[in-house]
Amino acid sequence: MADRKDMPHVVIVGGGFGGLNAAMSLAGAPVRVTLVDRTNHHLFQPLLYQVATAGLSPADIAVPIRSVFSRQRNVRVLLAEANGVDLPGKRLLLDKGELRYDYLVLAVGATHNFFGHDEWGTHALGLKTLDEALRIRERMLLAFEGAERTTDPEARKRLLTFVVIGGGPTGVEMAGAFSELATHVLSKDFRAIDPSQARVVLVEAGPRILAAFPEDLGKRAEAQLASLGVTVEKGRPVARIDDDGIAFGDGERIDAATVVWAAGVRGTKLSRALGVELDRGGRVKVSSDCSLPDHPEVFAIGDMAACRDKNGVDVPGLCPAAIQQGQYVARTIRAEIRGKPREPFAYLDKGTMATVGRKRAIAMMGKLELAGFLAWLAWMAVHVFFLIGFKNRFLVMFNWIWQYFTWKRGARLITTHTGVEPQLLLAAAPDGPVPSLRTTDAASKPAPTR
Amino acid sequence: MADRKDMPHVVIVGGGFGGLNAAMSLAGAPVRVTLVDRTNHHLFQPLLYQVATAGLSPADIAVPIRSVFSRQRNVRVLLAEANGVDLPGKRLLLDKGELRYDYLVLAVGATHNFFGHDEWGTHALGLKTLDEALRIRERMLLAFEGAERTTDPEARKRLLTFVVIGGGPTGVEMAGAFSELATHVLSKDFRAIDPSQARVVLVEAGPRILAAFPEDLGKRAEAQLASLGVTVEKGRPVARIDDDGIAFGDGERIDAATVVWAAGVRGTKLSRALGVELDRGGRVKVSSDCSLPDHPEVFAIGDMAACRDKNGVDVPGLCPAAIQQGQYVARTIRAEIRGKPREPFAYLDKGTMATVGRKRAIAMMGKLELAGFLAWLAWMAVHVFFLIGFKNRFLVMFNWIWQYFTWKRGARLITTHTGVEPQLLLAAAPDGPVPSLRTTDAASKPAPTR
Repeated sequence: MADRKDMPHVVIVGGGFGGLNAAMSLAGAPVRVTLVDRTNHHLFQPLLYQVATAGLSPADIAVPIRSVFSRQRNVRVLLAEANGVDLPGKRLLLDKGELRYDYLVLAVGATHNFFGHDEWGTHALGLKTLDEALRIRERMLLAFEGAERTTDPEARKRLLTFVVIGGGPTGVEMAGAFSELATHVLSKDFRAIDPSQARVVLVEAGPRILAAFPEDLGKRAEAQLASLGVTVEKGRPVARIDDDGIAFGDGERIDAATVVWAAGVRGTKLSRALGVELDRGGRVKVSSDCSLPDHPEVFAIGDMAACRDKNGVDVPGLCPAAIQQGQYVARTIRAEIRGKPREPFAYLDKGTMATVGRKRAIAMMGKLELAGFLAWLAWMAVHVFFLIGFKNRFLVMFNWIWQYFTWKRGARLITTHTGVEPQLLLAAAPDGPVPSLRTTDAASKPAPTR
Repeated sequence: MADRKDMPHVVIVGGGFGGLNAAMSLAGAPVRVTLVDRTNHHLFQPLLYQVATAGLSPADIAVPIRSVFSRQRNVRVLLAEANGVDLPGKRLLLDKGELRYDYLVLAVGATHNFFGHDEWGTHALGLKTLDEALRIRERMLLAFEGAERTTDPEARKRLLTFVVIGGGPTGVEMAGAFSELATHVLSKDFRAIDPSQARVVLVEAGPRILAAFPEDLGKRAEAQLASLGVTVEKGRPVARIDDDGIAFGDGERIDAATVVWAAGVRGTKLSRALGVELDRGGRVKVSSDCSLPDHPEVFAIGDMAACRDKNGVDVPGLCPAAIQQGQYVARTIRAEIRGKPREPFAYLDKGTMATVGRKRAIAMMGKLELAGFLAWLAWMAVHVFFLIGFKNRFLVMFNWIWQYFTWKRGARLITTHTGVEPQLLLAAAPDGPVPSLRTTDAASKPAPTR
């Protein structure tokens, strides 16, 4: 790339919606781009809950970042982790080495917010990466396996109880999908247990679920969840999460082997390492052109940034916002290279949606509100459209059509050596009594043994 | 299942081709069946190398055992590991608990044979389970990532060298697939390296590869491999495998970051725990009716068994043999319950094949030998036919057609937190020099850190 050495170097950190779109929108621009991500794939996060509930395979919703850019010659991709930024020196500090930049676009997203109880992260499983989705899937499948084997009714009840914490779209989608998995997909697969007796509880600290939606739509979703057999606990903040389940502030417990955290996000370590002003959620405060107030050549976009756009709108932490910001930053850099002044960012709210099971959803766009099957069709169409890669779109559509008609979920694999997975299998002899054993919960995968 | 309690209890250990077919063939029989496996899925092993080389996803070639039997009411499935058998007492000993049986069908397959060098198992990756296939995939993808980042030419060469040990079908298929991945799929995805410069070496201790095939077919396969850029080393037993690669008996080394073991199998711990006579490869010696000589109610089939059939043929360790034995054992049990005497097993050789890349293969059936594109079509047809599950057949066909026309391999995901994967990423600053670091090889996945 000898001809590019004197071109401005744009370094983009993060291969999610924001970073990917920024790089894609710089195609053909007179810059050289380095895109850094600590995984090798772009993840379609809105469908991650489907991997977690064994509906889709990882490869259906993820695409290798390299293949997205294989033909875009001004982009090179680096598998690396960013640890910090030397802002005066214009250097991005990596796990190994560094990158000097002329423009820096930070788009690393957010991490889980346990509201001061980071220790809960060892018991409750989050849902932001493929790794986490696969762990939830494993935990959930093993819970059913453990319930099948145990003769202890208390243990069985605990294993067949699934708690999802957080009443936003992610939590609602997870809870609905869990319930359908238990009630329909797995219903004939076991002999000692009836999976449809599984109990799914959605816990929300605030007075209603889907608080970002109008109240009537939130109520519709609640009714949809109820028809799927999901118990919704509103106005009940969690006070404690441990090996055995959760406890509310009043001491009431729910014993559950699987607890999923979808209750909040905050900024990552990288955001803190910048040394700039953050908001209460740890997000980086940026100007209306998405740049750091004192460093116009550094942009922060997507979930990691707190941006008030040109119309005074607080840009929400949604995928369409990250996409728009990524495209905006690329346009801004191109214009600036040509000597033009910057225009502020303007967020265009195209509507939001949340799905509840296989044929229900709620959606709103401006004043238009949809609920039920129509909303679900809209949800499907939008999500398939935004998937990157024709093959992925086809596979996801195929998988959904298959599941719609057959209820079979094909991605129900436990791939780590689980025969002696201690955390969930309770000791039981199907033909005779054996004392019940239970070991401690572990969020990390045990090292496989043969 | 109150009505079944007085029916004979058939316990089947292993959900591979042998065990699955035994259970399926007992549909409607007056028995109750318990199928035990330490994973929750049936794996189509012939295509495992495609998962290892990022061509297919795990869910494409595996199906949850429970869903195979959800409608077969006389079968229950147990996720458990078998540790031994109390032959006089007719009890199968599990990791937790036990099962009393009237008939026992052991079909646990084989494990890797390192010919007395079990320590090689920490450096060389085997290919028998999904877990192992994913580890190979991860190692291979990270090797390219590490090569992209390093500025050390020796390190780069090592990272771009892939060694496959074992010139049987598995080794040949892996080597061919590795080579195609490097030469075609990844070729435009990197900037600092040219993946087609990757070196793939197939190492075979004996005088020729594919020794089970006629010599001319073996030579055809060798030519096919050569045209794919694979170096074949025949007559060269490996003397040493370590962190950095392999060494032959004469001391010559090949430095390679990825070493795959496909050179031999032997009986598992369970086979040894039985306390019966084993052959040199650790396989359980059975009579011509597949049962233990002193325990006719105990059968051993598939790769774990050494059986000489009614025609004096030594039953080979191939999938079709395991399928036939599984079906045979089911028929034998049914007949015996009705008071009929046993017939010995007769293996029907329907031919074998090996594929070399995306449109070449060799195949033989009786006197008919095929090579090239026709053989590959036959190979594809047979493998798709034997896949369990209409959806899987469709997905695999779709994936292959897609890859055939586009070369894209969709399953190229690294899903564990790999940003700081120490084993392969060599320290390098793309914009400046940093001393080269290398840590020791590790066959086990590191615990993900955030």
